[in-house]
Amino acid sequence: MNIGIIGSGSWGTSISKVLLNNGHNIKIWTRDEHVFNSLKNGENPYYLPGISIPKSIIPTLKLEEVISDSELIVLAIPAQAIRSIAEQIKPLYSNQIIVNLAKGLEISTQKRVSEILDEVLKINKYVVLSGPSHAEEVARDIPTSIVAASNNMELAKIVQENFSNVSFRVYTNNDIVGVELGGAIKNVIAISAGIIDGIGGWDNSKAALITRGLAEITRYGIKKGAKKDTFSGLAGLGDLIVTCTSQHSRNRYVGEMIGRGKKLDEIIENMNMVAEGVYTVKALYEEIKDLNIEMPITEKTYEVLYLNKDPRKAIHELMMRELKDEN
Amino acid sequence: MNIGIIGSGSWGTSISKVLLNNGHNIKIWTRDEHVFNSLKNGENPYYLPGISIPKSIIPTLKLEEVISDSELIVLAIPAQAIRSIAEQIKPLYSNQIIVNLAKGLEISTQKRVSEILDEVLKINKYVVLSGPSHAEEVARDIPTSIVAASNNMELAKIVQENFSNVSFRVYTNNDIVGVELGGAIKNVIAISAGIIDGIGGWDNSKAALITRGLAEITRYGIKKGAKKDTFSGLAGLGDLIVTCTSQHSRNRYVGEMIGRGKKLDEIIENMNMVAEGVYTVKALYEEIKDLNIEMPITEKTYEVLYLNKDPRKAIHELMMRELKDEN
Repeated sequence: MNIGIIGSGSWGTSISKVLLNNGHNIKIWTRDEHVFNSLKNGENPYYLPGISIPKSIIPTLKLEEVISDSELIVLAIPAQAIRSIAEQIKPLYSNQIIVNLAKGLEISTQKRVSEILDEVLKINKYVVLSGPSHAEEVARDIPTSIVAASNNMELAKIVQENFSNVSFRVYTNNDIVGVELGGAIKNVIAISAGIIDGIGGWDNSKAALITRGLAEITRYGIKKGAKKDTFSGLAGLGDLIVTCTSQHSRNRYVGEMIGRGKKLDEIIENMNMVAEGVYTVKALYEEIKDLNIEMPITEKTYEVLYLNKDPRKAIHELMMRELKDEN
Repeated sequence: MNIGIIGSGSWGTSISKVLLNNGHNIKIWTRDEHVFNSLKNGENPYYLPGISIPKSIIPTLKLEEVISDSELIVLAIPAQAIRSIAEQIKPLYSNQIIVNLAKGLEISTQKRVSEILDEVLKINKYVVLSGPSHAEEVARDIPTSIVAASNNMELAKIVQENFSNVSFRVYTNNDIVGVELGGAIKNVIAISAGIIDGIGGWDNSKAALITRGLAEITRYGIKKGAKKDTFSGLAGLGDLIVTCTSQHSRNRYVGEMIGRGKKLDEIIENMNMVAEGVYTVKALYEEIKDLNIEMPITEKTYEVLYLNKDPRKAIHELMMRELKDEN
């Protein structure tokens, strides 16, 4: 299969390796001349230092080159860049399958990636790939399991068959809404998990927070039309666990610094990558009131980040809520 | 309330502190004279080194003393000791509420703790307390959330009201079967999570394993009469997360050593505490076939522990199973 990868960050480069190993012809688009030249030399030191990239992955600076030849297009760019890239793809697009790797909501509209693509491209061949999948590990062939979700199960199966191999296992799923929301909202819980790491590295507290955090993500998702079971799966629970526990997670890191007493502004200033949860929690905080959903961890995380609430006071308030039944 | 604690290990001692703080009168039974003398001096260096124990917690070597005075009895002993202690309690027992902290199945019969107590004591006032709750952290007032499950919700509420405080939050639940099974079977998944730690500390793989592990625990639980939602809660997911990720978990440790190439016999020989999962997986392996449930992670863990299967081969086999839908 001819596959075009849009985006040459760590995820785009890693998935290129997986797909090349599976026997596909791969072109990868980058707008960065330094990355372009590095890829030609068989590496991507900006995003995947120390990992060799097969030279048969063909880099290009021209978007039309990855699109015109491809039967399938992979979007490996941040959620906030989706709309602008979709506009650029539009004149070149001939109804290929689009596989989206971006996680997050568009900050200005709170829309999911599939909603944006639908608006711009009137897309009807959409698959979202999500789950616990640090790109650095995927690039090293470390066993990874992931979900391919689509409204059209035939498309999900095409992705499953073409993306799977011995170290990359793809499950199908028909709940786009749940898979997209799971990937976006987990970042808020990861910030709060990081806060607990920063305060004291409390194992009991963190496990309870992840559990109750998943419960509130699920409540929110159901209200937005997602299926409950999706949140117990790889794109819900799986991605939540990896984001709340991995040292590589940027959102967890922001929380950890907050827990250690740093201010949000200075933390963000000193990071060269975005922690999406910082924006997601803002949008959710507004929406929760309208939707009338109980999301106490999300609320407290917002208050700590934006209303200067002391994290220990927030934990105290969570612990002192009215005693209740678990379900 | 007069409360008798049976068992002076780390959990029994920690819960004594919680209950004393809540204003109850506490007696704690131990059969060990060294522990008895230490507790009289305000410490329990064998099980909770470095933590001061209030001297108003009254230790005793006589079982009748903790039982006769008590309105509520807490069982804080290993699952394998439940039957023998229940036999000793029998002549003294006057239908008090029993709160069980033990996790695990009786190896010889595969029975849950409530089933054993039912056989021996014809108990009708039973509550099981379970969730992510390392005793060392509970003793230090680190925020902990836990589930009190009973067939009789009035009893669960009595436990909730009397055990809860600002750092110990108790949720009620009416699914004894699910709560007891969650606490027992999580240990098998923790061994397999440890194996991944031992092989390479793979974040993606471990998150997927915990997710798919919870799915198979849930399938098993439903077959045994538990409620599905219980496994998404603190006694299911919460306890699973803490056991699979904490450095304190004995079951995770056994797995880690296996992943590093050690043999099961020598690992067990060098541990002074029991890792219950080593026995649970054996019993489950037999039962799975009879019940016709798919539990691939449990099966592979058994094969690695008892049939000398190479852990990397087991992971390879898990990854190469027939591709499927997530649900």
